Amino acid sequence: MKYLNQQEAINVDQELFNDYKFSVDQLMELAGLSCSHAIAKCYAAPQYARVLVCCGPGNNGGDGLVCARHLSLMGYKPRIYYPKPTPNPLYENLTHQCKSMNIEFVDATSDLENISQQYDLIVDALFGFSFKPPVRETFVPIINVLQNTKLPIASIDIPSGWHVENGKNNECDFEPSLLISLTAPKLCAKFFKGPHHYLGGRFVPPALREKYQLDLPEYPGTETCVKLS
Amino acid sequence: MKYLNQQEAINVDQELFNDYKFSVDQLMELAGLSCSHAIAKCYAAPQYARVLVCCGPGNNGGDGLVCARHLSLMGYKPRIYYPKPTPNPLYENLTHQCKSMNIEFVDATSDLENISQQYDLIVDALFGFSFKPPVRETFVPIINVLQNTKLPIASIDIPSGWHVENGKNNECDFEPSLLISLTAPKLCAKFFKGPHHYLGGRFVPPALREKYQLDLPEYPGTETCVKLS
Repeated sequence: MKYLNQQEAINVDQELFNDYKFSVDQLMELAGLSCSHAIAKCYAAPQYARVLVCCGPGNNGGDGLVCARHLSLMGYKPRIYYPKPTPNPLYENLTHQCKSMNIEFVDATSDLENISQQYDLIVDALFGFSFKPPVRETFVPIINVLQNTKLPIASIDIPSGWHVENGKNNECDFEPSLLISLTAPKLCAKFFKGPHHYLGGRFVPPALREKYQLDLPEYPGTETCVKLS
Repeated sequence: MKYLNQQEAINVDQELFNDYKFSVDQLMELAGLSCSHAIAKCYAAPQYARVLVCCGPGNNGGDGLVCARHLSLMGYKPRIYYPKPTPNPLYENLTHQCKSMNIEFVDATSDLENISQQYDLIVDALFGFSFKPPVRETFVPIINVLQNTKLPIASIDIPSGWHVENGKNNECDFEPSLLISLTAPKLCAKFFKGPHHYLGGRFVPPALREKYQLDLPEYPGTETCVKLS
């Protein structure tokens, strides 16, 4: 299977929007939905109902907001940690949708204490394939939580803080227990050692798959995600 | 279970967009996806791979365009009949996405001859809950096809040409074999006698469900649609 380097991941994304004319709303909805499905397959409610969804300022965070909403519709009790909300209509609306569904937003870093008593699972939707180190100050506390928690972590596309191509590093070496690669795995996924690796984002046009020789596995039936290992 | 009248259906839709701040892109993507899943459950590829997706000028047609794209990703060979394309970016982009995935658009009414030899299934995405009779001239030929074909028909939300509340009428009394009600069934669904009735559009916020006393069945697990009968 092909693993994308950072530039290829950026190019695939750009082609989906510019050449195939998908809107961010469309693909984010499908991506976030597939993440919620992979999570439900690995960590079923009600045992894992109390989920902390950690959202960053970019598209990875948007996937997290969508994922939280679909988790809520599937009987989970997600809360969202979103320390740097992005001031544009897309993110404001995604936030509003979650709040309208009574999903609580956790505001202060102090709320991150006693994580392991308050939650059953953490969703890491902080940074995606555009991430370049170092981790900025706002996100250091939550990265520290990911580094130190014993709760299972489900990372969307990239374990946040990992190098997109080289994986773990001195600053960040936590190990998610579920990694949901979107569209196609990025190179860092080769270093993922957790028990569950899924592929989501069932929207890649065949011509794009061929152009980048993505060689993706078949999604079974109507599934929105497929187990890779 | 609650069946919506036309005004309630319009109101629910308006609240989703205006109060809950969903974009049309988002909900159309989820609606069309759930339709493709209901179709796959009732009429599996490859036996029913050759699908004619008939799209009208409004949101029902948009759901059809999305459905066709997801059917294609699931191994179907859909073609689209879209006699009155809507000149706005949303519909133009949905059309472009389908064309970029090599989904053929059937242009002329003459292509509608010999339907039963060319296709295994028809998806009816012509008119939705805003429809008011009579059927306009452009759509009379395709409604005649639906009236006369022996192929199974999957209708999205409303069997097109049926009265949204009163069902069959002198102008249009075909019987779909699959009806996929979106968000909640409309009153005309009470008169549906076909073998498969599904509910799709798993995005209704709990507060909206309560406000309209929708009393919807539980969606199982990660399913995007649920069988009603």
